Amino acid sequence: MDQSSRYADLSLKEEDLIKEGNHILVAYKMQPKAGHGYLEAAAHFAAESSTGTNVEVSTTDDFTKGVDALVYFIDEAREDMRIAYPLELFDRNVTDGRMMIVSFLTLAIGNNQGMGDIAHAKMIDFWLPPRAIQLFDGPAKDISDLWRILGRPIQDGGYIAGTIIKPKLGLRPEPFAEAAYQFWLGGDFIKNDEPQGNQVFAPLKKTIPLVADAMKRAMDETGQAKLFSANITADDHYEMCARADFILETFGPDADKVAFLVDGFVGGPGMITTARRQYPAQYLHYHRAGHGMITSPSAKRGYTAFVLAKIARLQGASGIHVGTMGYGKMEGENDDRIIAYMIERDECQGPVYYQKWYGMKPTTPIISGGMNALRLPGFFENLGHGNVINTAGGGSYGHIDSPAAGAISLRQAYECWKAKADPIEWAKEHKEFARAFASFPHD
Amino acid sequence: MDQSSRYADLSLKEEDLIKEGNHILVAYKMQPKAGHGYLEAAAHFAAESSTGTNVEVSTTDDFTKGVDALVYFIDEAREDMRIAYPLELFDRNVTDGRMMIVSFLTLAIGNNQGMGDIAHAKMIDFWLPPRAIQLFDGPAKDISDLWRILGRPIQDGGYIAGTIIKPKLGLRPEPFAEAAYQFWLGGDFIKNDEPQGNQVFAPLKKTIPLVADAMKRAMDETGQAKLFSANITADDHYEMCARADFILETFGPDADKVAFLVDGFVGGPGMITTARRQYPAQYLHYHRAGHGMITSPSAKRGYTAFVLAKIARLQGASGIHVGTMGYGKMEGENDDRIIAYMIERDECQGPVYYQKWYGMKPTTPIISGGMNALRLPGFFENLGHGNVINTAGGGSYGHIDSPAAGAISLRQAYECWKAKADPIEWAKEHKEFARAFASFPHD
Ligand SMILES: O=C(COP(=O)(O)O)[C@@H](O)[C@H](O)COP(=O)(O)O
Ligand SMILES: O=C(COP(=O)(O)O)[C@@H](O)[C@H](O)COP(=O)(O)O
Repeated sequence: MDQSSRYADLSLKEEDLIKEGNHILVAYKMQPKAGHGYLEAAAHFAAESSTGTNVEVSTTDDFTKGVDALVYFIDEAREDMRIAYPLELFDRNVTDGRMMIVSFLTLAIGNNQGMGDIAHAKMIDFWLPPRAIQLFDGPAKDISDLWRILGRPIQDGGYIAGTIIKPKLGLRPEPFAEAAYQFWLGGDFIKNDEPQGNQVFAPLKKTIPLVADAMKRAMDETGQAKLFSANITADDHYEMCARADFILETFGPDADKVAFLVDGFVGGPGMITTARRQYPAQYLHYHRAGHGMITSPSAKRGYTAFVLAKIARLQGASGIHVGTMGYGKMEGENDDRIIAYMIERDECQGPVYYQKWYGMKPTTPIISGGMNALRLPGFFENLGHGNVINTAGGGSYGHIDSPAAGAISLRQAYECWKAKADPIEWAKEHKEFARAFASFPHD
Repeated sequence: MDQSSRYADLSLKEEDLIKEGNHILVAYKMQPKAGHGYLEAAAHFAAESSTGTNVEVSTTDDFTKGVDALVYFIDEAREDMRIAYPLELFDRNVTDGRMMIVSFLTLAIGNNQGMGDIAHAKMIDFWLPPRAIQLFDGPAKDISDLWRILGRPIQDGGYIAGTIIKPKLGLRPEPFAEAAYQFWLGGDFIKNDEPQGNQVFAPLKKTIPLVADAMKRAMDETGQAKLFSANITADDHYEMCARADFILETFGPDADKVAFLVDGFVGGPGMITTARRQYPAQYLHYHRAGHGMITSPSAKRGYTAFVLAKIARLQGASGIHVGTMGYGKMEGENDDRIIAYMIERDECQGPVYYQKWYGMKPTTPIISGGMNALRLPGFFENLGHGNVINTAGGGSYGHIDSPAAGAISLRQAYECWKAKADPIEWAKEHKEFARAFASFPHD
């Protein structure tokens, strides 16, 4: 059944849709299966993503047609298809009238991912009108809160040198806390690695008090504030809260130095919202482990890392991993810069749409995955600034002298870039940075 | 850095690992990027998925090595790689010691999806030892509870004829409830379509009372019990509960006839667990909209529909969509049968592993997506039984006579197959079934 007369209107102009502000616009890279016309497949896609199905139904009337999603642009050669979704399509909370990410995903990247006539479709950008922006939580805390705690200028507090407790798993409570202490002697920020929680060999109720103590000792010793990003990811909402409450109570007066990490991609929007809404006083750290299953450039379905980051800001992530833009161990390209820019600025040009955020707090780009002091200067040069959190696990615990030396080497790498210095020259005067050359592969 | 001496042990035998029961076994279809050796890439993959990273770290000791994940089998030509994960790697609830799906995903299909040396890897099967099975919730209710409510034999209650309120979106409260009433005159089970919730044109607090009333009227009229699967998906746990509580209260004495639908794939394990643990008296309906982004046979990352279904049973889904096995509008193959068998039996051979469930309740296969009376007999023949829930949206509201006629045609299709009758002959004596030929395309 050809639905293009109903679900496509190529005379609609994007600029008008943006001016009117009554739709969410979504751009896909879409290819139909062989034997299906592009426009017909696109229209069927819009139907399945809004008010239609594979046949006409007797219950359709003029009102329901008023909320049809419409294909408003196609460029078949570039696989470029864009759909306007009326705002009314999206579910709103009964309790507070807000919008929800799960409804956006269910409609805009739900059943349309399994249709028999679509070879593949990947969401590459989306645009929200002002009304919709205001109906999402956005971050409660941002990097300026961390800068304040660290005693730095809250406008431009610079690089936050962080790590991930490594090894990823296997450390018992004492060596775990000792690893944290060692890093904090030189660095600012520590996160649980994303699977670390309450393993049998490291019960959370034993480990966390030791970590809080390690933080206190490191703060005494260095005279600096320190930050800890604690993993509270769990299937059960009440388990998340039990962990969070125990952690806050244990850190006591230092609870402001605790962020909450959630495995947001595999955990889903519900877990992020639990952290965002139950603990608005904590910085919310969005870990995206697993996202490569769809965001990899080789994956032709789902959505991109850019879309994921934009969604995370709407949900209220204070920071989200954005990759290392080709400088680390994970997949990534130099021009992934745009991911960072979209989440940290108040307005930004995306791959397709120009988005204004209307004062929604920024989400910090978190740089992680095979990072070390040698790779950082090039990374900053490419990004154009250093106002990020960087967590380097191997880059700290793999430093041949000590985790503290690893941490210091990271900060020196930042200062090398800030000073526009030549790394080789810089190494002559900065021991830990120099020793990074002996610790990590380089060319 | 070649990690294969540490993270691979091809002398390990699968049968021994299974006998010992101390590991979760996972099978992937994995291909390294060009220029990377298969075993080296596999070992790096196991490292990143357990205790390692891209470099050696100073904090590693003999204890941490004891929980390394190990590659124990590879068949490079078939892209077949299998890893044994020690049970200790997985996070356990502080509150009740249980395991959680999010931890399984974070480790087994997390960062390994974005590694620079892996072209792609897709989880195609996994095996849980008895200890782990016992640490998951599993379903609280199953199809036998629905059969009991419908007054049927609870061992073998047969086909449950269902629908999805269509159109997907756009119906205001009265036409919505009317659409439900019309279907219930002939059918058993109605679900909210997966995006339906609290849209501005159909506020949940207005719609649900009308649906409850429609159910009551249809029950009076037909003398049969009816079932409603209500969507409670929401980012916010408390919003989910607010919806669920309102719905249960509104249905009052008929609350046992209410199931809760959750968009489990895009919503994530947290939302499923909220429904499972807060409302163990309700049948939990797992909708998987969006899963095609990874489960499609053309997607080479993430995991398969089979893996998704197996996970859903562990999480406690009472029923999950399993596709139409090539008979409907969505992607799918005849031999997707194994998805249904794995979730409904107490033991079953999967694509790689033979899994025993040790009495964990079954998860009903829900058959949906372009289904109608004409397509059902072939579907049952292929599956080998009809003890499923089938929701046919277009197949009901697209029937040219009425939704009730659509519902009746579905049941007649089941009876046609049960009687091993020829559909053309059967149509002569069954009006609604006959009229399905005039309603839907066929050959
Ligand atoms: O292993 C990690 C970092 O450790 P290391 O520094 O030892 O490599 C991961 O958490 C990655 O950051 C995830 O990737 P993204 O940040 O790209 O999501
Ligand atoms: O549109 C649907 C059914 O409506 P209709 O009967 O009108 O086609 C979906 O909910 C599909 O069931 C989803 O696919 P899976 O069931 O394969 O997950």
